[in-house]
Amino acid sequence: MSDRQAGQAAGSSIPSPAGAGLDTAATAAGLAARYRAVRQLTETLAAPLSPEDQMLQSMPDASPVKWHRAHVTWFFETFLLLPHLPGYAVFDPQYHYLFNSYYEALGERQARPERGLLSRPPAAAVTRYRAHVDAAMDSLLAGADTAALARLRPVLELGLAHEQQHQELILTDLRHGLSRHAFAPAYLPPRPDLPATDIAPMEFIGFRGGIHPIGHDTDDGFAFDNESPRHNVLLQPFRIASRPVSNGEYLAFMRDGGYARADLWLSEGWATVQREGWQAPLYWSRAGDAAGRDIWQVFTLQGRRPLDPAEPVCHVSFHEAMAYAAWAGRRLPTEAEWEHAAGSPLVRGDGGFLDPAAAHPRRLSAAPGLRMLGGVWEWTRSAYEPYPGFRPLEGTAGEYNGKFMIGQQVLRGGSCATPADHIRITYRNFFPPAARWQFSGIRLADDI
Amino acid sequence: MSDRQAGQAAGSSIPSPAGAGLDTAATAAGLAARYRAVRQLTETLAAPLSPEDQMLQSMPDASPVKWHRAHVTWFFETFLLLPHLPGYAVFDPQYHYLFNSYYEALGERQARPERGLLSRPPAAAVTRYRAHVDAAMDSLLAGADTAALARLRPVLELGLAHEQQHQELILTDLRHGLSRHAFAPAYLPPRPDLPATDIAPMEFIGFRGGIHPIGHDTDDGFAFDNESPRHNVLLQPFRIASRPVSNGEYLAFMRDGGYARADLWLSEGWATVQREGWQAPLYWSRAGDAAGRDIWQVFTLQGRRPLDPAEPVCHVSFHEAMAYAAWAGRRLPTEAEWEHAAGSPLVRGDGGFLDPAAAHPRRLSAAPGLRMLGGVWEWTRSAYEPYPGFRPLEGTAGEYNGKFMIGQQVLRGGSCATPADHIRITYRNFFPPAARWQFSGIRLADDI
Amino acid sequence: MSDRQAGQAAGSSIPSPAGAGLDTAATAAGLAARYRAVRQLTETLAAPLSPEDQMLQSMPDASPVKWHRAHVTWFFETFLLLPHLPGYAVFDPQYHYLFNSYYEALGERQARPERGLLSRPPAAAVTRYRAHVDAAMDSLLAGADTAALARLRPVLELGLAHEQQHQELILTDLRHGLSRHAFAPAYLPPRPDLPATDIAPMEFIGFRGGIHPIGHDTDDGFAFDNESPRHNVLLQPFRIASRPVSNGEYLAFMRDGGYARADLWLSEGWATVQREGWQAPLYWSRAGDAAGRDIWQVFTLQGRRPLDPAEPVCHVSFHEAMAYAAWAGRRLPTEAEWEHAAGSPLVRGDGGFLDPAAAHPRRLSAAPGLRMLGGVWEWTRSAYEPYPGFRPLEGTAGEYNGKFMIGQQVLRGGSCATPADHIRITYRNFFPPAARWQFSGIRLADDI
Amino acid sequence: MSDRQAGQAAGSSIPSPAGAGLDTAATAAGLAARYRAVRQLTETLAAPLSPEDQMLQSMPDASPVKWHRAHVTWFFETFLLLPHLPGYAVFDPQYHYLFNSYYEALGERQARPERGLLSRPPAAAVTRYRAHVDAAMDSLLAGADTAALARLRPVLELGLAHEQQHQELILTDLRHGLSRHAFAPAYLPPRPDLPATDIAPMEFIGFRGGIHPIGHDTDDGFAFDNESPRHNVLLQPFRIASRPVSNGEYLAFMRDGGYARADLWLSEGWATVQREGWQAPLYWSRAGDAAGRDIWQVFTLQGRRPLDPAEPVCHVSFHEAMAYAAWAGRRLPTEAEWEHAAGSPLVRGDGGFLDPAAAHPRRLSAAPGLRMLGGVWEWTRSAYEPYPGFRPLEGTAGEYNGKFMIGQQVLRGGSCATPADHIRITYRNFFPPAARWQFSGIRLADDI
Repeated sequence: MSDRQAGQAAGSSIPSPAGAGLDTAATAAGLAARYRAVRQLTETLAAPLSPEDQMLQSMPDASPVKWHRAHVTWFFETFLLLPHLPGYAVFDPQYHYLFNSYYEALGERQARPERGLLSRPPAAAVTRYRAHVDAAMDSLLAGADTAALARLRPVLELGLAHEQQHQELILTDLRHGLSRHAFAPAYLPPRPDLPATDIAPMEFIGFRGGIHPIGHDTDDGFAFDNESPRHNVLLQPFRIASRPVSNGEYLAFMRDGGYARADLWLSEGWATVQREGWQAPLYWSRAGDAAGRDIWQVFTLQGRRPLDPAEPVCHVSFHEAMAYAAWAGRRLPTEAEWEHAAGSPLVRGDGGFLDPAAAHPRRLSAAPGLRMLGGVWEWTRSAYEPYPGFRPLEGTAGEYNGKFMIGQQVLRGGSCATPADHIRITYRNFFPPAARWQFSGIRLADDI
Repeated sequence: MSDRQAGQAAGSSIPSPAGAGLDTAATAAGLAARYRAVRQLTETLAAPLSPEDQMLQSMPDASPVKWHRAHVTWFFETFLLLPHLPGYAVFDPQYHYLFNSYYEALGERQARPERGLLSRPPAAAVTRYRAHVDAAMDSLLAGADTAALARLRPVLELGLAHEQQHQELILTDLRHGLSRHAFAPAYLPPRPDLPATDIAPMEFIGFRGGIHPIGHDTDDGFAFDNESPRHNVLLQPFRIASRPVSNGEYLAFMRDGGYARADLWLSEGWATVQREGWQAPLYWSRAGDAAGRDIWQVFTLQGRRPLDPAEPVCHVSFHEAMAYAAWAGRRLPTEAEWEHAAGSPLVRGDGGFLDPAAAHPRRLSAAPGLRMLGGVWEWTRSAYEPYPGFRPLEGTAGEYNGKFMIGQQVLRGGSCATPADHIRITYRNFFPPAARWQFSGIRLADDI
Repeated sequence: MSDRQAGQAAGSSIPSPAGAGLDTAATAAGLAARYRAVRQLTETLAAPLSPEDQMLQSMPDASPVKWHRAHVTWFFETFLLLPHLPGYAVFDPQYHYLFNSYYEALGERQARPERGLLSRPPAAAVTRYRAHVDAAMDSLLAGADTAALARLRPVLELGLAHEQQHQELILTDLRHGLSRHAFAPAYLPPRPDLPATDIAPMEFIGFRGGIHPIGHDTDDGFAFDNESPRHNVLLQPFRIASRPVSNGEYLAFMRDGGYARADLWLSEGWATVQREGWQAPLYWSRAGDAAGRDIWQVFTLQGRRPLDPAEPVCHVSFHEAMAYAAWAGRRLPTEAEWEHAAGSPLVRGDGGFLDPAAAHPRRLSAAPGLRMLGGVWEWTRSAYEPYPGFRPLEGTAGEYNGKFMIGQQVLRGGSCATPADHIRITYRNFFPPAARWQFSGIRLADDI
Repeated sequence: MSDRQAGQAAGSSIPSPAGAGLDTAATAAGLAARYRAVRQLTETLAAPLSPEDQMLQSMPDASPVKWHRAHVTWFFETFLLLPHLPGYAVFDPQYHYLFNSYYEALGERQARPERGLLSRPPAAAVTRYRAHVDAAMDSLLAGADTAALARLRPVLELGLAHEQQHQELILTDLRHGLSRHAFAPAYLPPRPDLPATDIAPMEFIGFRGGIHPIGHDTDDGFAFDNESPRHNVLLQPFRIASRPVSNGEYLAFMRDGGYARADLWLSEGWATVQREGWQAPLYWSRAGDAAGRDIWQVFTLQGRRPLDPAEPVCHVSFHEAMAYAAWAGRRLPTEAEWEHAAGSPLVRGDGGFLDPAAAHPRRLSAAPGLRMLGGVWEWTRSAYEPYPGFRPLEGTAGEYNGKFMIGQQVLRGGSCATPADHIRITYRNFFPPAARWQFSGIRLADDI
């Protein structure tokens, strides 16, 4: 997927600003349709879950599904309805406290580790809250003139992108919550067993160095503020792996003592391995077969099943990615390298984006060629820092990204939990180096 | 209430062993009726709660209501149905892992701090589990002959007493869980405002020293193993307060700097005050009135309301009880003193036991006289230790009490959350000295 | 040693109050001589240590030797010299902050876990501080008339007993500090190897029940406030072991899986075993011999050496003592039982008291008979609580004991680190149930 | 100081490799002289300290001075004497365990937080250890032929640079250790009071963007591996402040509520402010003056004294630097910007390097112009990452830098605790963003 294609994906159902000559009503209708589609997907994801499932909070970093559903709704209420819809009646004044995530400028809020203590409101009330806000959003869009639409549109797009981010978190947080249950109950029906398969060998594709642009051009449709400004970077020649590391390849690292060799790890990574007792990626568990050999199982949203060596390795931390790369005699790409490679016309998609019926990375392809985007997020060697000339959004929304620019590594490419129309090749995801509960995997690179 | 009366209370609806000449069927029917009554009360307590409310776990020491409901059921399944009902079909084999509390001899179990992560089974399944076990219990009792009844009865009585203990915990754990919600939602409808009232002054009633028996005679109906054997103790002459300390009296302690004066506290208590920032009993919150004076509010199961000075002070730790006593120039009673006084014919009830419609201590009485039992548990100066000659129950149930006999203080008398037919004057409750989430208050004593 | 003998020991070099007809100067001289003897022993204990050794603080509960030396000196300065010696010049006004231990009434003080950060004053300055205070104490005693002596004497005796307590802590804290060094350096020269020996079998000596006095009569010489008042207790008939449990016996418990059997432990003890990974008493380490058998070594103040099965087991917690007793089918004595037995004319000494050249328990005797006192402190089943009618000392010294009366178990009998003239059979030592760094062992008891 | 000048500084006393035609003996003598000079400075820094002062470890990140003195010596023993000096007798075989810092490949070592528990060996033994190694190093260098010198020289230079790093740590760790003492004792005699002074206003000096080289050319004398390879970067036009932020300027930030405004801070920084209760830089303490105004004092190695507004602000974390920059409407420079600016011929030195008699930053200059290097380390906005093409050293020394390349920010320029011949403009120092105990300050930058 090229940069332009990604841009199209992100804005596919909304006439672009260049379409200012078009009918305002059509623009509003397009936005409203997209709003409904995004909102519906959230409910589709929550549909298999009981009210009790929706309350699970298994660690401070994760949030209950019910909270996600309400929080994204609060975002529209706070940033669109209250300032822009005259006479809008707040659904419940307590919700502002309960469902604000981290906006300091908006006052006190429910402590993050205690979101799981919100038995009230019940899930059914959150469903009503969503309907209330959706109806008001319909009114807002239906009544907007051209000038209003121009004001609303950036915030609406931010709100939709925001809800899509939480759709991914709904799945990752839920997987973590269910995994802590002794019997690891499933969210989805089990996948039928698949016959063993071959995957394409990993190749390394070379790229010339030089000055190349990365980042998002703010005239080119919606993107998060952290993707801008578009700017030139100077790259050394490099090579990038044609596909992510597979489970099978990662098993070889494990069997070669990867988790026991300090020399492969960053110092902080090694300390984490020892403190946490890591011996495999998150959600893997060991079982013996009749012959006494290790058999690995993986807890997925479709239940526990045998490890599939043809899938990309997933739920590894940056530290594990670094150790694997050291073991393989390679390195991780920088985010600039990654983005430059992903913009190549050679690239074909891989791994797949969010499919609510699977919520799991597809097997790696048997066909050769450079495949990027989808399946698993890919850790880069780049710390999450502002681009040159970065400016946060004005106002409260300025807290969206900039204040997290420390202590995190950039991941690229989207995963099997990312909505397909949410991702761009300029998209910068970010997590701390020890985080493992996202769908995060490994792409290797190398110097030439 | 005298000792004998308490014994009657505990066994009131069940013919005593002395009634062995009676009809076996009548005994079984009596046991079954009592079983149904106890089991029903649990459901009555849970009835106002949504499935989500029943999942709340706000601290490791507290458990979700759903878990309580299932755990007490598991107790009957494990200790009565499986060993004694031929052909009994376990409701769900996973429940053994999920709902075992602390019986090491019975294998691994759900980690206590993670009981709140059990979204599965849902509350509705627990309701079915309860019905399944209740039906089997009916069969078990209906089919029991005299010999079988003799074997079953002690375990059944233990199981019922056990469920009653969890009825109290349902209320205390729920109160804690709801209190952590920013808006402190109520469990019960609010109590109408009451006009101010006077309470009887605190008097100190003297008792002669000497050799006196305390503890439970094992021939005298059911009691927990920790209440036996009945044995003589040597008491010095002492005086005991006619009633618990009131909220109003405790406020005077607070206004006199009680929480800021190290000299009033045990060393560990003072460290706790500073570490936890205690400035008042649990669930109290400060608000200012128009004149700028401190107004205290209390979060109750009926919602938040102004502090009532006529109620007994409640939700204080042993440390606070000790500090209050030091400030008042008195001391706490030992458990032997308490029990000896409670056995006096002078004693009249006070405070009330579990009323599912209030779940709160009654105001202290305006009438004078020695009033003990009910309202609030009363901290004693006695560490929870085995009585001379104590022997735990044989088998797994031996883990019931004995293994907790360290690091805890004895409380006596029952509270507004204790079922009336559960308490005895020999009853020994126990909690760590910093625990505050039980309905625990203060009774003073003094040397003569 | 009978109670009377212990009383004599405690006051052996000081004419008793009954000698009020004696010459005041002789009394003062006797007190001064005793003062010098106690003070000298502290310096004898510190003599083998470098200034750096004297700074070690290996855990918050332990204090550096230099701090002990200064703190006991500060006690005399604060409670005797400042109030009673006109014109006394404080050695250094900062020392009040640095060397106050826990007297809240005396103001802020150096945080306990940071005593090891006091590189200033150097050990040499503490030596000068001790000399300064000693000279002033000489003046104080030399100039005291009969009335003054009567006022000074109780405080002086408290100060000396206090310094003796810290003599024991100097050894226990130092042993802990040195043990954390990878090469476990010795404090004293190694003990020559001893040939194997037999010890007397453990017998159980019966005592009749009844009403018996325990505690210290305040007319009978110095004792700590927590030992009074002397009062009657009602004992059931009991038996007590003739000697402490030996290392050899404890090894049998270990080899029988003692640290892996939950049923032997109190719940809190079992949690501690698992959290701390206990597999043996403190200071034991495992080494294999040529035949692959476990060989245990023990780090002592004389260096590391093979475990001697004939010594009493030492450095066990209350939890380990309880588990051992459960394994042996016995129980621990209460402190009243212990004291009653120790007062028997049958008792002979055992184990030995502080010998600065060894600082280690002697082997158990090969001769039969009831042997108590010395060697190791013995955990009792009794929580540390006030005796009936207990009143703390007036004033600041009232913080000495009473405020610690929660969360601790009583130990009795003194150890190889206790000065011989410090102990009494009424003496109540106390530590939390998980503490292991004291010279603490196990005496069994049983019901009859 | 230009890049070339810095190169000269770093190697000033050692003939360069280009001098291979020179006499080998002269080269060896030059190296030996430099070795002696560096080693002597360590002892000069330790000279005012007692053995007890040298044991202080006030937090896990800091190490005792004695440990530093031994560890740098162990480095020479391990990496030079053992592999290269035939017949070298290890001073003490235990030291390998005690004084290895973090080299996993070299085996187990003393746990970092427990270095303060090493009372043995005493400081005097470390002094002998240093002499032993110094004598052997003399022999090694005296006996080296040209080929040997070529092999030894890179390791020797690494060892000397390593010891110089620890010279800075000796001062920073000591300052922290002494600061925890209630009376904050001084290391050096107090500095005489200075009259108030003016400093030059902060100007912003512009630099054109473009492609510029940064990093160290490995042919150009010694540098750490993390400074290489020299490579081109693409810079946007930028401006950099002419001097660091002063104490006076930082006070204005504080008085404007800088520590209370969430909007100025990174999210993690704000959480740190609240968790740690930061209200000022480390070592600042507040005192009131007669008029009730805040007067700030600073604990320095010369004792506590009033805050000097003309000094650069020091002992601030990256988070504080970021918050200050946000408040000032500026940003921090990237490390590439910093290095490019520092290479300008305009730059003049500032702040001064290590002077053992002061160990404190000089006041900022009253003269205008771009002043960089010395005084305080300057936080950059750049995470500590490998340069493109970075390769760690071969062998064990490869653990020197690379394994720390996560979770840290780069600091540039050296401080008042950095030896003058240790620093280079390519030098990359690194610490976690919350670290404050280094001499770290703030340089602002801006976009053009």
